Amino acid sequence: MNKIGIIQQVEHGSVTLAKGFQAGGLHCGLKRKRKDLGWIYSEQPAAAAAVYTTNAYQAAPLIVTRESIAVEQKIQGVVVNSGNANACTGQPGLADAYEMRRLMADQWGIEEHLVAVASTGVIGERLPMEKVRAGIAQSTRHEYQGVEHFEEAILTTDTRTKHFAVQLEVDGQVITIGGAAKGSGMIHPNMATMLAFITTDACVEQPFLLKALREVTDQTFNMITVDGDTSTNDMILVLANGKANHQPLTPAHPDWEMFKNGLAMVCRELAKQIARDGEGATRLIEVTVKGAPSEQAARGIAKAIIGSNLVKTAVYGKDPNWGRIVCAIGYSGETFNPEQVQVKIDPVTVVDQGLPVSFKEEDAQAALGEETVTIEVNLNMGEGTATAWGCDLTYDYIKINALYRT
Amino acid sequence: MNKIGIIQQVEHGSVTLAKGFQAGGLHCGLKRKRKDLGWIYSEQPAAAAAVYTTNAYQAAPLIVTRESIAVEQKIQGVVVNSGNANACTGQPGLADAYEMRRLMADQWGIEEHLVAVASTGVIGERLPMEKVRAGIAQSTRHEYQGVEHFEEAILTTDTRTKHFAVQLEVDGQVITIGGAAKGSGMIHPNMATMLAFITTDACVEQPFLLKALREVTDQTFNMITVDGDTSTNDMILVLANGKANHQPLTPAHPDWEMFKNGLAMVCRELAKQIARDGEGATRLIEVTVKGAPSEQAARGIAKAIIGSNLVKTAVYGKDPNWGRIVCAIGYSGETFNPEQVQVKIDPVTVVDQGLPVSFKEEDAQAALGEETVTIEVNLNMGEGTATAWGCDLTYDYIKINALYRT
Repeated sequence: MNKIGIIQQVEHGSVTLAKGFQAGGLHCGLKRKRKDLGWIYSEQPAAAAAVYTTNAYQAAPLIVTRESIAVEQKIQGVVVNSGNANACTGQPGLADAYEMRRLMADQWGIEEHLVAVASTGVIGERLPMEKVRAGIAQSTRHEYQGVEHFEEAILTTDTRTKHFAVQLEVDGQVITIGGAAKGSGMIHPNMATMLAFITTDACVEQPFLLKALREVTDQTFNMITVDGDTSTNDMILVLANGKANHQPLTPAHPDWEMFKNGLAMVCRELAKQIARDGEGATRLIEVTVKGAPSEQAARGIAKAIIGSNLVKTAVYGKDPNWGRIVCAIGYSGETFNPEQVQVKIDPVTVVDQGLPVSFKEEDAQAALGEETVTIEVNLNMGEGTATAWGCDLTYDYIKINALYRT
Repeated sequence: MNKIGIIQQVEHGSVTLAKGFQAGGLHCGLKRKRKDLGWIYSEQPAAAAAVYTTNAYQAAPLIVTRESIAVEQKIQGVVVNSGNANACTGQPGLADAYEMRRLMADQWGIEEHLVAVASTGVIGERLPMEKVRAGIAQSTRHEYQGVEHFEEAILTTDTRTKHFAVQLEVDGQVITIGGAAKGSGMIHPNMATMLAFITTDACVEQPFLLKALREVTDQTFNMITVDGDTSTNDMILVLANGKANHQPLTPAHPDWEMFKNGLAMVCRELAKQIARDGEGATRLIEVTVKGAPSEQAARGIAKAIIGSNLVKTAVYGKDPNWGRIVCAIGYSGETFNPEQVQVKIDPVTVVDQGLPVSFKEEDAQAALGEETVTIEVNLNMGEGTATAWGCDLTYDYIKINALYRT
């Protein structure tokens, strides 16, 4: 974990807590009832950094957003729809994404290349553009403004909105970093049907903002999994509009690490909220691997455990079946010495030096009943450490995914 | 698929169809009610070839079996228990496996190193050896002989016994290849809680038997998955006792390919039976990838699709959500051109040139309702082809695995 310094969490903080950002959302008809069109707007163009899905199929909005950012590494407005991913829709789908961008730019009276576009939902169906057009035309109306509308508008099978914000001091000025996200199903290392939007009034040069985002993403959003699938639409977008009055942040700035830690906190908390709200999940699972030969090995093993259907179902059943944890370590492909492995279903030690330790079944079941189930593995080899987050696998996951499209 | 030549399937054939093999099983108390101790015996020492799990944790019986085969590459008897994997049990567990081997060798009056040992079941608990001893002591009794007893004794959460046999001619002599297997949960490419025993009266030099087994395994047992987990206990063991009177088979023998095809048929059918009987499964899913740049790429993509929880739940829900198939191709990590991809939920084409094709929902749902659901992907790039097998993901998978140990 990063050290936190004097970074303060702000209750209920989201993407509009930082100076100069507004957001809103409405229902335009892509989903039956719930809001399905949202936006974020910055009073001035903001330095923009984004990371995208690694899926070979990249949805149309990602292509458009990449183009926008490429022009001057700045974004002033973001438009997001849920209910339809606009993925695998070919040239017509790409044209739809361009039109969304142009229509939103016209509403705001800004240049097209300052607008980012994101979509999430069903793959392979054309966007019903007449609904999108009607929605965008109404997007400036007063009743649709408000960050809670935005947070709802980006959800798919999520059961709750997701936001987190912190404040810290840079050059004696308070700066804010706040984010909102959606996740739920198809969440996997390398980001899947996961959208996260982070805004800050910090003044950061774009190349350094991107560098920070990439480093932080590897330890946060890329360490969560729900079902091992990786979607076509994921994007994490950070906007820094520089409204806080301080010296531009670069790695040379004395407060650079603080800023990165603040960004990491926001990303980590959003990632955990996404994992906790995984489809059908009843509990958050946090797996920490210590004593690995390298951080990469620690990540590989943590991901193998958190990705195991058998571990996930055992947690759901409150079954201290540590054999499945050990087994996942074994097939992770990482090198380790089985005889040195210690496993805890925190606080209960279940395996020591690779062998079972006798424990009270009820203690382990209590640990497995916690809102957050913490599994700790110590390979007792080196300094490599990593944490991954996921959720249990339940009847409701099957229910949701056997019937999602129909 | 391999060409079949004049290889004949033999209905109900199993590990005792080949000349000179017997088998049996009984209940010794490792499981509540069902049989849990089984054996195969050959009238004479048989050339023995085996492949084992890739899991870094190797169960005690695998270590013992490796040692046995190492002595003279021959095995005459196999003892198998279910209900307890004897894995992660350290030196004491290893001593138990050695004792199982010795006791069985004494019963048969053969040398210890001619006995192979296999176990499947819960990880990390000591074998109740008094029960195993009592069981082995009774193993020669008449009422416990019979291959159907053996097939039952090796099962864990399997719902049905698994066997397949073929006959073919070598040098004008009929030879038999027959097998029995168990699988169910924790089945994944590279073999997991999967045990398969194959016997033949063919005369094959051991190094060539091992070579054939390895080649065949990559196209059969290593192409099935149920839940992506890879266990500590898997083993596929082939015994060739040479009772059929013909020239020893080597790659130079004119009937070598025929023999390999026969072996491949037995392995493929056993692998499919294992996939079909995956925990909670209602249907077999067969994924064939064609037109890949290489066979390896085809395998990678076929495994990504068959391993996708979202594809598996969609099949369970008869939901022609082809976006999940395309998505799995996309994150397989293999190189391909999205614009050239064709996808069929046989016989319904759902994607062509990377774009959705309009189809009758009821046709696709009918295809998804078949006992075997066939998904066919054509990358239209090269000659690489591969087939993988799996099953749908259902409520019962959760039920079985949330409650397996307790």
